[in-house]
Amino acid sequence: MQTLTKTIKAMTITDFGNTNVFKESEISKPDPKGKEILVKVHATSANPVDCKIRKGMFGEMFKLPAILGFDVSGVIEAVGEKTSDFKIGDEVYYMPRINGTPGAYAEYHLIEESIVSKKPKNISHTDAAGFPLACGTAWDALIDRTKIKIGETILIHAGAGGVGSYAIQLAKLCGAYVYTTCSSKNFDLVKKLGADKIIDYKKEDFVETIMKDTNNKGVDVIFDTVGGETLAKSIDAAKPFARIASIVRDSRDLPMASLYMKNISLHFVFVQSNRYKLDTMRDLIEREQLKPVIDSVLPLSEAAVAHQKLEKGGVRGKIILNLTPQMD
Amino acid sequence: MQTLTKTIKAMTITDFGNTNVFKESEISKPDPKGKEILVKVHATSANPVDCKIRKGMFGEMFKLPAILGFDVSGVIEAVGEKTSDFKIGDEVYYMPRINGTPGAYAEYHLIEESIVSKKPKNISHTDAAGFPLACGTAWDALIDRTKIKIGETILIHAGAGGVGSYAIQLAKLCGAYVYTTCSSKNFDLVKKLGADKIIDYKKEDFVETIMKDTNNKGVDVIFDTVGGETLAKSIDAAKPFARIASIVRDSRDLPMASLYMKNISLHFVFVQSNRYKLDTMRDLIEREQLKPVIDSVLPLSEAAVAHQKLEKGGVRGKIILNLTPQMD
Repeated sequence: MQTLTKTIKAMTITDFGNTNVFKESEISKPDPKGKEILVKVHATSANPVDCKIRKGMFGEMFKLPAILGFDVSGVIEAVGEKTSDFKIGDEVYYMPRINGTPGAYAEYHLIEESIVSKKPKNISHTDAAGFPLACGTAWDALIDRTKIKIGETILIHAGAGGVGSYAIQLAKLCGAYVYTTCSSKNFDLVKKLGADKIIDYKKEDFVETIMKDTNNKGVDVIFDTVGGETLAKSIDAAKPFARIASIVRDSRDLPMASLYMKNISLHFVFVQSNRYKLDTMRDLIEREQLKPVIDSVLPLSEAAVAHQKLEKGGVRGKIILNLTPQMD
Repeated sequence: MQTLTKTIKAMTITDFGNTNVFKESEISKPDPKGKEILVKVHATSANPVDCKIRKGMFGEMFKLPAILGFDVSGVIEAVGEKTSDFKIGDEVYYMPRINGTPGAYAEYHLIEESIVSKKPKNISHTDAAGFPLACGTAWDALIDRTKIKIGETILIHAGAGGVGSYAIQLAKLCGAYVYTTCSSKNFDLVKKLGADKIIDYKKEDFVETIMKDTNNKGVDVIFDTVGGETLAKSIDAAKPFARIASIVRDSRDLPMASLYMKNISLHFVFVQSNRYKLDTMRDLIEREQLKPVIDSVLPLSEAAVAHQKLEKGGVRGKIILNLTPQMD
């Protein structure tokens, strides 16, 4: 008997560099074994970490050619012989691990079932694909690490961005008072998401605004999505014993003496895949307590355009890459 | 009627610099008002922070002439009219605030009652004066900030030192497994305090030893009392999601990408005065679960010698400055 090797379409990168490195390729269709499942990808998304990997920043993990993409919403097509939690046809969403294994810029994605969760029923694959990495990052930072709680104040940098727009919603759900920075064109968006005090970072000094508004006390929690000087400066807006979460890989020149004198806790957050988190997020989404925030939807063939938009900045929520536009 | 101005002896610093800056002086005896109490100092101690202030590192707080000394064990001599928690004759111990107000290198010390605690009954003033700042620092780092718990592993740098020797005891009381670095002459001491695995930092690479011993997992918690390269290198011995507490003011050049990839929480710890902490510490001391570790006892007139010993390094526990040798 003859075995047919099936191929699928994938968007690969064949080099590290600018957005020219994307190439539409044919790869072998993976075959799920053991506790793996094969998911038909309906939607994935572009995240800043994709751009960083594309540029070679995670070169210790990713070997060429590589497939980016760390969000999936899709339908189970096949299951390994030891799976127990899902069946063919289930709608699922999850975050592929960022560890060098193939991402989801492809028609199908192979994943171990332990980090997969049922997709929220009340939203489309397009909307669902915006949650796992971006909302998961905000979750790790605010719920698991800084443990923000009722009555506290938080500064969220870039509140209109892919991660920030979920961070505002989570902080509000926890009962916190939210300061956020954004440009004036996004005031409407962050206000709708629940931000209490909006700071136009182009016109205002955020430290000055916060210190004035808090009677020079500062905020309890800072969520840094920007790094560098913004993170360093933020320490001046922090209360003693404040918790700062940074999701930026290479922040340098932090004012160490200030961190010490203020007894700051600095949490470095590199988002992790975790089913429990997605299960809880799904409950919140289905209760309409947590809403998708979508900047734009593009076909996978325009991955390069998605990366350009991310790198240009000023994105409002998530950029989704949709593989089945006729269905979602 | 004539008012006599009473004077007391104090060891002041008249300049920032080396150990020559100490001067035996006469100062006015303070008069407690409101919620203040006046304590006859039986013993105080020399801590690394005294050396740093003496050198001018906290120049934004301390103006000259200044009185150092941030440990007190003594007896209440007088109380302000609004005090309610203590009476004349009570034996107390506490940590004067490090905020520019006078320290305790003096015959008497004025303090607000809110941060004062009853001295443990079963130990001398000499032994009690070793606890508030040093054990309080280990307490802030391990109990309040990194929240070490049963079954975890911890690396304690300089376990034979003033702070490290209390950190070992606290970590063991919490049920942790303790790795500690020290020089071979202090193996006996840290072993007696409860250290499980002792690393001779002069002969062994502590990262190598720990990674081998933990099957390349690393430790859950790191307590850094050294800073600089030691802190930077320690990150290689940390588990993903490890908590690191550093009590060093000016550590630079941390490997930020490693902190991020490992999801490290970095707690900067500048010890705070707090009665509750001293109350709990007293319970542990009186139950003989927590023991004094004393390197040496000197008269206050030899404060300069105490600083020289601290700066030379290799101290085993605390250096106490005793003002009433005939009594303790």
